[in-house]
Amino acid sequence: MSTDGRFLDLVGFQHPIVQAPMVGPKGALAAAVTAAGGLGSLACAALDPEGVRREVAVIRRATDGPFNLNFFCHVPTAPDPTREAGWRDRLAPYYAELGLDPAARTAFANRAPFDEAMCALVEEVRPRVVSFHFGLPDEALLRRVRAAGCLVVSSATCVREARWLEARGVDAVIAQGAEAGGHRGLFLAESLDSQVGTIALVPQVVDAVRVPVIAAGGLADPRGVAAALVLGASAVQVGTAYLLCQEAGTAPVHLAALRAARDEDTALTNVFTGRPARGLTNRAMRELGPLSAEAPAFPDAAAALQPLRQSAEAAGSGDFSPLWSGQAASLARETGAAELTRRLAEGARAILRPAG
Amino acid sequence: MSTDGRFLDLVGFQHPIVQAPMVGPKGALAAAVTAAGGLGSLACAALDPEGVRREVAVIRRATDGPFNLNFFCHVPTAPDPTREAGWRDRLAPYYAELGLDPAARTAFANRAPFDEAMCALVEEVRPRVVSFHFGLPDEALLRRVRAAGCLVVSSATCVREARWLEARGVDAVIAQGAEAGGHRGLFLAESLDSQVGTIALVPQVVDAVRVPVIAAGGLADPRGVAAALVLGASAVQVGTAYLLCQEAGTAPVHLAALRAARDEDTALTNVFTGRPARGLTNRAMRELGPLSAEAPAFPDAAAALQPLRQSAEAAGSGDFSPLWSGQAASLARETGAAELTRRLAEGARAILRPAG
Repeated sequence: MSTDGRFLDLVGFQHPIVQAPMVGPKGALAAAVTAAGGLGSLACAALDPEGVRREVAVIRRATDGPFNLNFFCHVPTAPDPTREAGWRDRLAPYYAELGLDPAARTAFANRAPFDEAMCALVEEVRPRVVSFHFGLPDEALLRRVRAAGCLVVSSATCVREARWLEARGVDAVIAQGAEAGGHRGLFLAESLDSQVGTIALVPQVVDAVRVPVIAAGGLADPRGVAAALVLGASAVQVGTAYLLCQEAGTAPVHLAALRAARDEDTALTNVFTGRPARGLTNRAMRELGPLSAEAPAFPDAAAALQPLRQSAEAAGSGDFSPLWSGQAASLARETGAAELTRRLAEGARAILRPAG
Repeated sequence: MSTDGRFLDLVGFQHPIVQAPMVGPKGALAAAVTAAGGLGSLACAALDPEGVRREVAVIRRATDGPFNLNFFCHVPTAPDPTREAGWRDRLAPYYAELGLDPAARTAFANRAPFDEAMCALVEEVRPRVVSFHFGLPDEALLRRVRAAGCLVVSSATCVREARWLEARGVDAVIAQGAEAGGHRGLFLAESLDSQVGTIALVPQVVDAVRVPVIAAGGLADPRGVAAALVLGASAVQVGTAYLLCQEAGTAPVHLAALRAARDEDTALTNVFTGRPARGLTNRAMRELGPLSAEAPAFPDAAAALQPLRQSAEAAGSGDFSPLWSGQAASLARETGAAELTRRLAEGARAILRPAG
């Protein structure tokens, strides 16, 4: 069959495989994917500009191919000390259990939205693609990103969000099905009860917008890639499968959980950051959620969990770690990122090739 | 590409399209689908043996092709008068609003599990396929179904359920993704938070069992059918799209809701029957659920809603009706069932045919 090659042509890369941006992996993963002919992505939400500059240098030392810088663009909420104190109270028994000072604060890089400083960095670095999660930044910043020659991409979890993004001039829409690991990109959809699965979402988005559509959610092997292309996607964004690549540097507790994951082991949770995200069900999700009305707004739920996470991880436990995963982790194979990129693309091509 | 033709060969039908059994449509829909080369299905859960006999006669007058009789096989729970009284109290304001006597009882055909009488009917009628929902009936009944020469099929919502079914000798497993409309077939899975989407579920089930896999959930047009075949499915079960066919006799309020449905308009609810099922969000779901801890056990939640449903429907409102729908209703086209069956199969074949 013939597939929609528009996104490949637009960006200028070979295989219809986008490595999903994920907090955790750094430039080494993006570099390997881009060098292999896919589109490597760097999640910048938990980096400062200096960190982004350093990781971009890692990518550019390895390849002169196109890559994607990804940013969150949530609207920060005002601090809510009452809510945060309540959350700390809720977590206090765990602090006691792990022998931690409940007043302990751990410095860590929380998720920050795309801003003036990051925009200046984009203008300096000029990545081929800039992708956003949770909508789009304000029009002035967006104009500067476009003026820097970057293609703009963002995620939609429903047709309404896809149309909203197209109306604001994105070059491609990521249709993020409910199977996807990590944060749901939703920004207009109100209800978590109504999140749409990939196989239903992709063709409805393809019918609704004229820009190329990148399919995401539950796609971890060549069959998933081929199915997404058949649904009309122009490329496929793969996350969880890349977490099992050496270049991802995935934390040992996370890696162990991914290796053991079954299809039914994930859920949407807001206890780690305040926004719904899909991860492998662990103790924090079971006992605090998976969806908690007490969790502070994004991203502030994370701060109070951080000391618990560090302490537990040091003891080899993922009880308090976000173990982000989509619903198809069991289809992933541990391999190098270049090999995975080629296997996904060539395997899908072989499936769609005429028999005999 | 070459697809898995095992289920077609086993049953002896032409197109890899199974019309999903749905309470509502009767023999006329199954007859049209089977006559067109698909596998027509009759939902028997809300029929008595005489009703099944009558609808089977409708099918057999139209075609001598294979068809499927579908039964629920939940374990009935003991009546819980306290819970049912609480549910009636919860609904009392709606009875008042609609001017109904809160003590009113409406006779209606509630869902009954597969039993001795239905098994005797299967032995009399000898359909080519018998499919079950919510697991399998007890071994003695199952042995009689097999001895009658029927192929046995049941639904799995996760890999664990698929393996359980295979171990009990089913001839094929329906992998029912979270996108599917109507009742979730779950019988081992405990958590509604972890329901797996079709594009992730199908390949994991295909890898886990040796019997043919029928994909279900969010598949309403040729692209969905082609994608499911690419994922390794041997056939595709389509429900919602058939509700829009003339032969389905879908109630006007349901039809109107399906025509207006957007991708994000469904949710899982237990307020209509006591078990989780996907429908278009309406007033009853919004105000009572969509998931309610007060709803009586399956199927007893339905009885108290029935007078509200009838009264509202008579006034043209679907406020209290189960508006079952999968997540891809907007992809469906209003047409005849034979035309839909052929369009799904031939359209999928055309997509998977080599280009040029």
